[in-house]
Amino acid sequence: MTDLDFLRDAVGPDRVSTDEYARDEHAGDWGTHPEDEVRPDAVVWPTSTEEVSAVLAGAHERGTPVTPYAAGTGLEGNAVPAHEGISMDLTRMDGILDLRPDDLQIDVEPGVLGSAVDEAAAEHGLTFPPLPSSGDISTIGGMIATDASGMQAVKYGVVADWVLELEAVLADGTVITAGSKAVKSSAGYNLKDLIVGSEGTLAVVTRATLQLAGRPQQIKGGRAVFETFDDAAGAIADAVQSGVDVAKIELMGGFAAEVANEYVGTDLPDAPMVFVEFHADHGIDEEIEFCRTVFADYDPHSFEIAADEEMAQLWELRREMAYALDEYREDLRPLHPGDVTVPIGSFPEIVRRARAEADERDLPMACYGHAGDGNLHYEILVDPDDAAMVERGEAAYAAVVEAAIDLGGTATGEHGVGLGKRQFMEREHGAESVAAMRSIKTALDPEGILNPGKIFPDEPE
Amino acid sequence: MTDLDFLRDAVGPDRVSTDEYARDEHAGDWGTHPEDEVRPDAVVWPTSTEEVSAVLAGAHERGTPVTPYAAGTGLEGNAVPAHEGISMDLTRMDGILDLRPDDLQIDVEPGVLGSAVDEAAAEHGLTFPPLPSSGDISTIGGMIATDASGMQAVKYGVVADWVLELEAVLADGTVITAGSKAVKSSAGYNLKDLIVGSEGTLAVVTRATLQLAGRPQQIKGGRAVFETFDDAAGAIADAVQSGVDVAKIELMGGFAAEVANEYVGTDLPDAPMVFVEFHADHGIDEEIEFCRTVFADYDPHSFEIAADEEMAQLWELRREMAYALDEYREDLRPLHPGDVTVPIGSFPEIVRRARAEADERDLPMACYGHAGDGNLHYEILVDPDDAAMVERGEAAYAAVVEAAIDLGGTATGEHGVGLGKRQFMEREHGAESVAAMRSIKTALDPEGILNPGKIFPDEPE
Repeated sequence: MTDLDFLRDAVGPDRVSTDEYARDEHAGDWGTHPEDEVRPDAVVWPTSTEEVSAVLAGAHERGTPVTPYAAGTGLEGNAVPAHEGISMDLTRMDGILDLRPDDLQIDVEPGVLGSAVDEAAAEHGLTFPPLPSSGDISTIGGMIATDASGMQAVKYGVVADWVLELEAVLADGTVITAGSKAVKSSAGYNLKDLIVGSEGTLAVVTRATLQLAGRPQQIKGGRAVFETFDDAAGAIADAVQSGVDVAKIELMGGFAAEVANEYVGTDLPDAPMVFVEFHADHGIDEEIEFCRTVFADYDPHSFEIAADEEMAQLWELRREMAYALDEYREDLRPLHPGDVTVPIGSFPEIVRRARAEADERDLPMACYGHAGDGNLHYEILVDPDDAAMVERGEAAYAAVVEAAIDLGGTATGEHGVGLGKRQFMEREHGAESVAAMRSIKTALDPEGILNPGKIFPDEPE
Repeated sequence: MTDLDFLRDAVGPDRVSTDEYARDEHAGDWGTHPEDEVRPDAVVWPTSTEEVSAVLAGAHERGTPVTPYAAGTGLEGNAVPAHEGISMDLTRMDGILDLRPDDLQIDVEPGVLGSAVDEAAAEHGLTFPPLPSSGDISTIGGMIATDASGMQAVKYGVVADWVLELEAVLADGTVITAGSKAVKSSAGYNLKDLIVGSEGTLAVVTRATLQLAGRPQQIKGGRAVFETFDDAAGAIADAVQSGVDVAKIELMGGFAAEVANEYVGTDLPDAPMVFVEFHADHGIDEEIEFCRTVFADYDPHSFEIAADEEMAQLWELRREMAYALDEYREDLRPLHPGDVTVPIGSFPEIVRRARAEADERDLPMACYGHAGDGNLHYEILVDPDDAAMVERGEAAYAAVVEAAIDLGGTATGEHGVGLGKRQFMEREHGAESVAAMRSIKTALDPEGILNPGKIFPDEPE
């Protein structure tokens, strides 16, 4: 049990809790990697950089683990404590500190919701383009911690590309800045991109300067339906290789389409679908025609494009898909949601491999993803009470991750490693690279108090 | 004097040299930070990852400094030894290993010239967009070491944005890979972007996988002439803030224009000029009209746009400017070439400040730069034999760097720190951040053999 007096000194007694509800609330996320259901001993809600620093300095002195937490929407157990200690809940640091339209920049605290950033930007005709689909319920701090990305990564890149500067607190309470408000800098080591994606294991981010962009003048999009999975995946890869300037290009496999059709009550074919959206300041119709020409080689059943409400209508199945899968069958649950990402030329191959791994084990699997990045989300459905099915599911799940790595890709394109993907790190990076990462961890957090038990496959207890 | 037997074992006797010519050749670069004219004791030319590893393992064992070297086109002494030892010349590792057009990727060795990469890409209709202006004489390894960028950064980003994966050798000879061939990954610490820009102080890059892009279908560009510096800088900032999709946008100050006009023999006004280039697959004329509308608020004397040869003609002054400045006056030499970069909203201000610092010290100064990034190159001209003038020049030079930092910018946008910008690192990042950088250096290179004396302001000898 953690000595908590220092926490009360650091943030005041009202913002420390050891009650069961608070501890339970900070012991899980949206993923399915429960391990041994570790709960924090205490939850603390700092409201300033100084308080974050005081908590960390005290924890560092005592060797007490601190796991940063915010919206709890991670999929890999990223913010779930692996070693008890303190859950540092950053949701009360949710301010928008400064917006400088002339610089196309905004300064925010880590607990602010992504959608709040985009809304503040919108008042100046600006937008935060890398927002993930979950942007209205997840925080900027969480997105930075996992180097998240969304549907628009194919055009605009990932969260890391839009983070200019960070203020962060190291394990011993030292406050540093990383990066620059200049859009480019070659002044010393890139601590900014080291902290981005480190899942709270190197530092706790307390302020971020984000880059914004102008909102596009023209938006159109829609849906193409293909005969086969191979056709849909091939059309996507070909569009990216040909340089079609698409802002979103999403694949939905035939099974997911079937489930979504039934849920929404549409009479579309239960066939693979590709959802697209285009952004431009002018000339959007020429770009759409270019895409239509590329897709034509894969004989789509249909390729419908529209704007505004009608576009939203064409995207309905994609929007409802997650709910549809969730309610598909009471007895079947997704095993581990998450993603893999491969070079675009291998995207058709990873889609084939994933389907084969599920088929040969007789498992239902929904495939979808931000396909323009080579990103594949695959949800294997299993009956949690059927141990043999769960075991087959785990084998298929791991086989797809390993296939992605073998194709030159990554075990996780946008959700981080957390607990769930630790076992694949050496296969992906090699033991030497993982050792180099670990030496950096040790250099910056010698007591190992920051989110211990994450990312590394076999961190000593 | 270095014990060289291990070098001969590592690479064979033909690729080790201690002769005066080789040592002199590896003791300088294109910049003007000679310090004490340190020369390496020996030069070694490895031809494989294994040889790089063997050299480093031997040097690590002996505590011998190793400074990676390639084209020698750096401006900040980045590749000039500060502590003798071994110069590791990577120009014989200049292969293009693999080009995968379906993935839009190319694998290269570090010593390959940037232009060779772009030419190989061009055979498949592709290009390497972040190439610096010096791309035909500088190597990919050097660009990675300094996180270089070029005129097209305003549209396409910097070198780091186009490096997907690296193979690199750590100080003790361990070979690692960093990054992923997937276009996005959140799998563990971002070692790739830590190594990029670390100027050979953390690892020696032996292979890089670069991202390529399609070549634009349409290219047009030209030149606008403005009444005042403030107008030119304001027009550029306004264009970027308004989201004009420009591929290059270069500022040339009035003095530089005067010198270039005289050198080329043109009868243009000796007034600030802005050079632009647009890339598109369609709709380029609409974009140019948009730019024209924005520029109109700053009353340009002229704004001429053309394609092909005629465009090249409009860019002539910008192309000849470096030669013109070099031959301007026999007695005046540029003090320290290099750049600073600020947030775009502060670009007009840094231009004003730079001019004021030079004017009040009665110093001729040429201003130019990749202005769309907020990037300013400024060359203060001094008579090297006039000690008082050199002293005034040094004061003005430092004042501009400090002004850029105070405006939220960086001491070096694209040339690295090397020897020349070390003294500004604590002002830019704070002592705590520099200490964190140093702890990473110590973790990865405990003997301090890799390019010692660079980046850090007061590294112990």
